[in-house]
Amino acid sequence: MRTATYFFIFLNLSLAVFEEPAVYPLPFLVTSVVEVLCLVVFFGRLTHFAKVTRRNVFWKDTKNICIMVAILLSLTDLAIYGVLRMYDVRSIRWSRIVRPIFLINFAESRQIRRAFRSIRNTLPEITYVFLLFMFSLLMFSLMALKLFGERNLQTAEGLPYFKNYLEIVFDLYVLVTTANSPDVMMPAFDFSSWYALFFIAFVIVNTYIFMSLFLAVVYNNYKKHLKNEIRKLAYMKHCKMIEAFNILKEEEGAQFVVREAQWKQLVKLVAPDISNSHRELLLRISDDEQKGFIDKKSFVQLADLLNIQVITLKIRSHPLGQWMPGVYKSAVSRFLRSMVRHRGFVWTYDVIILINAIFIALDEETPYISYAEWVFLALYIIEILLKVYTYEPRAFFGKNQFWNWFDTLIIFAALTATILNTTLRSTTKYNSQQILDIVFILRVLRLIRIVDSIQRFRVIMNTLINIVPTMLTFGGLTLVVYCVFAIIGMELFHGKIQFFPANSNAPHSLECGNTALKDSLFARAKYCKNNFNNFASSFIVLMELTVVNQWHDILSLFSLTPAVFFANGFANVTVQPAKLYFIAFHIVMVIIIVNIFVSFILEAFFVEYSLEKSEVETAIEQKIQELGMGVQESLSSFLLPICTVHSSWLGSQGDYIRMNAYSDCLGLFGVGFFFWPPAGYRTVDSLLQRMFEAEIPLEDEGPSVEEFLNLSPTAAIPSNVTSESAA
Amino acid sequence: MRTATYFFIFLNLSLAVFEEPAVYPLPFLVTSVVEVLCLVVFFGRLTHFAKVTRRNVFWKDTKNICIMVAILLSLTDLAIYGVLRMYDVRSIRWSRIVRPIFLINFAESRQIRRAFRSIRNTLPEITYVFLLFMFSLLMFSLMALKLFGERNLQTAEGLPYFKNYLEIVFDLYVLVTTANSPDVMMPAFDFSSWYALFFIAFVIVNTYIFMSLFLAVVYNNYKKHLKNEIRKLAYMKHCKMIEAFNILKEEEGAQFVVREAQWKQLVKLVAPDISNSHRELLLRISDDEQKGFIDKKSFVQLADLLNIQVITLKIRSHPLGQWMPGVYKSAVSRFLRSMVRHRGFVWTYDVIILINAIFIALDEETPYISYAEWVFLALYIIEILLKVYTYEPRAFFGKNQFWNWFDTLIIFAALTATILNTTLRSTTKYNSQQILDIVFILRVLRLIRIVDSIQRFRVIMNTLINIVPTMLTFGGLTLVVYCVFAIIGMELFHGKIQFFPANSNAPHSLECGNTALKDSLFARAKYCKNNFNNFASSFIVLMELTVVNQWHDILSLFSLTPAVFFANGFANVTVQPAKLYFIAFHIVMVIIIVNIFVSFILEAFFVEYSLEKSEVETAIEQKIQELGMGVQESLSSFLLPICTVHSSWLGSQGDYIRMNAYSDCLGLFGVGFFFWPPAGYRTVDSLLQRMFEAEIPLEDEGPSVEEFLNLSPTAAIPSNVTSESAA
Repeated sequence: MRTATYFFIFLNLSLAVFEEPAVYPLPFLVTSVVEVLCLVVFFGRLTHFAKVTRRNVFWKDTKNICIMVAILLSLTDLAIYGVLRMYDVRSIRWSRIVRPIFLINFAESRQIRRAFRSIRNTLPEITYVFLLFMFSLLMFSLMALKLFGERNLQTAEGLPYFKNYLEIVFDLYVLVTTANSPDVMMPAFDFSSWYALFFIAFVIVNTYIFMSLFLAVVYNNYKKHLKNEIRKLAYMKHCKMIEAFNILKEEEGAQFVVREAQWKQLVKLVAPDISNSHRELLLRISDDEQKGFIDKKSFVQLADLLNIQVITLKIRSHPLGQWMPGVYKSAVSRFLRSMVRHRGFVWTYDVIILINAIFIALDEETPYISYAEWVFLALYIIEILLKVYTYEPRAFFGKNQFWNWFDTLIIFAALTATILNTTLRSTTKYNSQQILDIVFILRVLRLIRIVDSIQRFRVIMNTLINIVPTMLTFGGLTLVVYCVFAIIGMELFHGKIQFFPANSNAPHSLECGNTALKDSLFARAKYCKNNFNNFASSFIVLMELTVVNQWHDILSLFSLTPAVFFANGFANVTVQPAKLYFIAFHIVMVIIIVNIFVSFILEAFFVEYSLEKSEVETAIEQKIQELGMGVQESLSSFLLPICTVHSSWLGSQGDYIRMNAYSDCLGLFGVGFFFWPPAGYRTVDSLLQRMFEAEIPLEDEGPSVEEFLNLSPTAAIPSNVTSESAA
Repeated sequence: MRTATYFFIFLNLSLAVFEEPAVYPLPFLVTSVVEVLCLVVFFGRLTHFAKVTRRNVFWKDTKNICIMVAILLSLTDLAIYGVLRMYDVRSIRWSRIVRPIFLINFAESRQIRRAFRSIRNTLPEITYVFLLFMFSLLMFSLMALKLFGERNLQTAEGLPYFKNYLEIVFDLYVLVTTANSPDVMMPAFDFSSWYALFFIAFVIVNTYIFMSLFLAVVYNNYKKHLKNEIRKLAYMKHCKMIEAFNILKEEEGAQFVVREAQWKQLVKLVAPDISNSHRELLLRISDDEQKGFIDKKSFVQLADLLNIQVITLKIRSHPLGQWMPGVYKSAVSRFLRSMVRHRGFVWTYDVIILINAIFIALDEETPYISYAEWVFLALYIIEILLKVYTYEPRAFFGKNQFWNWFDTLIIFAALTATILNTTLRSTTKYNSQQILDIVFILRVLRLIRIVDSIQRFRVIMNTLINIVPTMLTFGGLTLVVYCVFAIIGMELFHGKIQFFPANSNAPHSLECGNTALKDSLFARAKYCKNNFNNFASSFIVLMELTVVNQWHDILSLFSLTPAVFFANGFANVTVQPAKLYFIAFHIVMVIIIVNIFVSFILEAFFVEYSLEKSEVETAIEQKIQELGMGVQESLSSFLLPICTVHSSWLGSQGDYIRMNAYSDCLGLFGVGFFFWPPAGYRTVDSLLQRMFEAEIPLEDEGPSVEEFLNLSPTAAIPSNVTSESAA
């Protein structure tokens, strides 16, 4: 269901690629049929949702209202557009802007919605700082007008310099983004060196202080509101666990408890994929004194316990050892395995990677070097085979063995692509550029492995890998903002600039098909491909604007053609609307979203740097140690240095667990053993909870009644209680 | 002494302005005599310092060794340069680079040294992230080489695109600073739209993630090390207070105490400028039960008590009320005063300021508008006079009345400048540009006042004002880095570019006096004044580089002339040394110092946002309340809304205290009263202490023995114990 909803949401969004102006044009009939189909699916999903929800809850939820309005608007717009089109009247498909609403408002995209809520909550604070910033900007502009306006200075392009107040405001706003520094300063600076002080003061106040202030406010609010949300979630979880307890409870002496059998059944239902020994471990933690029942306090903890990823390692001997024990346990085989386990093996391959890097940088055309590529591929494949031979294959390709998977995939993809490329070249004399490009990229990616050999780098890399899922939330957020701006941008600027290939002899190919751009910097710098002619190009232009630079260049072009606004019925105010479009984009994207992104990375790194175990984790670890299944107990000293990576050290360092070393030790001892990898915090929710759980005192988890009433209405649905809280 | 040392340090630094290449050239003899004079002063200061310090402590301190080495180096270099000059041999004054050492290493500049220490401590962490970043950069460059190197693409200037590996590395490094986006992407993007993905991936990984990572690491380390320093300081303070206690203690019953008389004498000695009532208040806090002596625990608190700024308001009636009570207390006068106190008065002037802003923006030439300027000036002066008439003048111009001072100074400066300008114009027909510029700036600055009327803005403004002193530390840091880079830059690039005024007819005036720049973008954009020809210009170029943009333009020029390095005896490595110079500057300035600056602003704002009273503050407030001298007690309800600003609210909001409202209430009640303004945390030390004191548990203030041994040697000087800890 979830996948299907997402599929239709993205199908609906990707319609922009095929609709006019299209990257790959499709007839209007096709796109409109697909759109209607999507809308029907959304409506169906909503109806289904309405059925499982209580009526008053459903109608109170703004999300559902939003979706309904969006469906209605889309249908109306589609109908109007279709009818007008039949009479050959061109109108605007304005409803395309509402499409991202589906992405935000379906219950599935909780993360994106939370990010949006966080932004909405930050807005009041940001607004005050923004107003102060605008005030400062206006003040500086006024000063600039008085200081430079009557000097009759000229810019490098020979235009009047700082004559018009609104243009000064805009120029200085662009200076805040540092995009037109130092061009904007040069005429005044040439006139008198002292005027540089004005610009220095401006940059210090507005770029450094105010931009940091934006970051501070966004970060502060982001933290505050996220903390509130997490507290709310924790409270909800608590409530639902108590609800569940009340359903399952039985009387036992003076207190109500849940019997062991019932508890086991529940866990099996809620988390069907955990192993028996894992479930046994959880039971031992919940029922510490082995009384055969679980009391309320321990029961409530269950959701947290299930949240902690515990890896169960089935100690299996190597399959080869079972199939041909004679060969596998022979002296040669043992020597081979101890060789692979030796540190020197890793170092040797690090040296090979470095040599490989040099070979990649060298010229491809020399035949020796292209042969060397085969040698390197063979060496990498031998490495993987040796490792699989030495370590237990199922452990080697375990769920959390990111680097093993990465290695194997990269190398087999490179092998396939290289073979494909060679075959194609030799048989059809066709040199497929795409495949060759992929081969090159894969070859270079192989080099990343070397990072894994150095402890400090591994820590940083793992933090980065851990925050990838949350970065995807920001990806979703960016997608929504980009979609809206791309659609508006296409309506406003479509066709103003055209790109012609280098050897084209179209009439205005050198000025991007627009005579207004003759001799402009824009055309001279060959920016013609930066246009709003289709969805993909718009995305790339918006990306460039996010990276802030070259703003004024891209802008100078669009502001040349304000006529488009008349055509669309906009009034042409003094500041060209094109400028407003770009300022709006800058505020939304750079000031708010990028700052939230930076805040998130900051917070994630602080958490990783000061990683401490939560209470529940400590309880699990203790129990593991007690049961004698921990790593520390199972290792004796002579196995060092391969096996020294013990769990407490792993916990505090947030380190990546080198499974090969572990499974190796295990293979020798044959003890069943558990641990939880810090790398397991891969879901956004758990990372966020981890971020703040240390700061939330336990007593706080029961908030006041008003707070509970402010919870979002979906929270009150009594269906699938435990599965959601355990998720 | 302190002022004199600073004077000579800055004199020594400013010599760079007068030495070859000079802004204002002075003969070599003059500058060298001044330099020798400075060095003699530094040596004298050092000798003086050696006298008051124990011998082994003095020689163990790296600071002193540094200064001595710097003096020796400077003298040697000066002598060599002087001798060579006599024989007309041109050599490099390399010792000028060591001059900033004096700024860092004298005991007076503790803040800058601390910032340097913080940077040094951050280096190891940063290095790891930097290496990983470089690795990522090299990987992407390798990919770019393989993907684009053999396509025979050309840049917009017709140069080969992505052919040489080291040039790719450099181009992509510049892309991280976003300075050459999207230029660097366009050739590949024009070739195939898919290649945009490569650059998008690059920007996300390197610009967004790695740059945030740098901020995170810098911020984290900055916080950590600063916390350590503050803890050390707190411990030292504690130790010294105990030392002082041991000197002053007398036996009283079973315990040692300090007698009231001794205590009073000490406070008078240590803080001679606090009022009697303030001292009495402190005594009442320290000697809570009025036993006539102070125990050890309360005594140790003294330094903290003195740190808290408590303002004593002497309740005096208005001087006019004393001189001519009849007039001052007449009905007209009372009406006038109540009018000024009314909210409407502030609003009226806000409206006047807005109208003023519009008038400023209008054309100056119209005679009515230049008359209006006089009207506005008169209105502002009347406002100040009315306020001084209504409120007690000494309270109005109190130490913490930042905005009153600001208003008055701005308006009287504007008055003076306007009168001066008019006189000069009418008498000599000379239109002094400088004075007119100042008048314009002052006029615009007057408008800032409107910010003060809005509560939320005031909070933000006050935080900004509070962190100004610490920003000055960063100013010092920046000065040191700029000095070093400017001096190196002048040696390397001096005279390569020349600036000619617009109407000059010098031979190569259009290409900045360098034929290599013919038709270059640099010359076309009229960047000629961005050069390293003198100290001031170098500073401005470095400032532009700090703002990151236009890097590659400025760079392309200097890399054209690597010959200069041969002349100076450098080897010309493959990457032009010019590029290394700029990369080094970027790493030091942007990656480290700007990030620390941002960290500081972030931290300062978080502290201001979560301002809570420290323990000692609460004690003072309690005592004030107890003694019935607090604001809350002295106000009855009918005085609202003017007097509602009570002290606890002020404390929690970090708000600016509108003294006029207070002194007004006071005038009516005549109670002596105290409060401490949060705006009082103006010294860097106390702000830093405030930042971290909440996080330092009290037990931690006694660190281990090793930690104590690691304290800097100056800390062990037993001289002026209390004055330093009270400062």
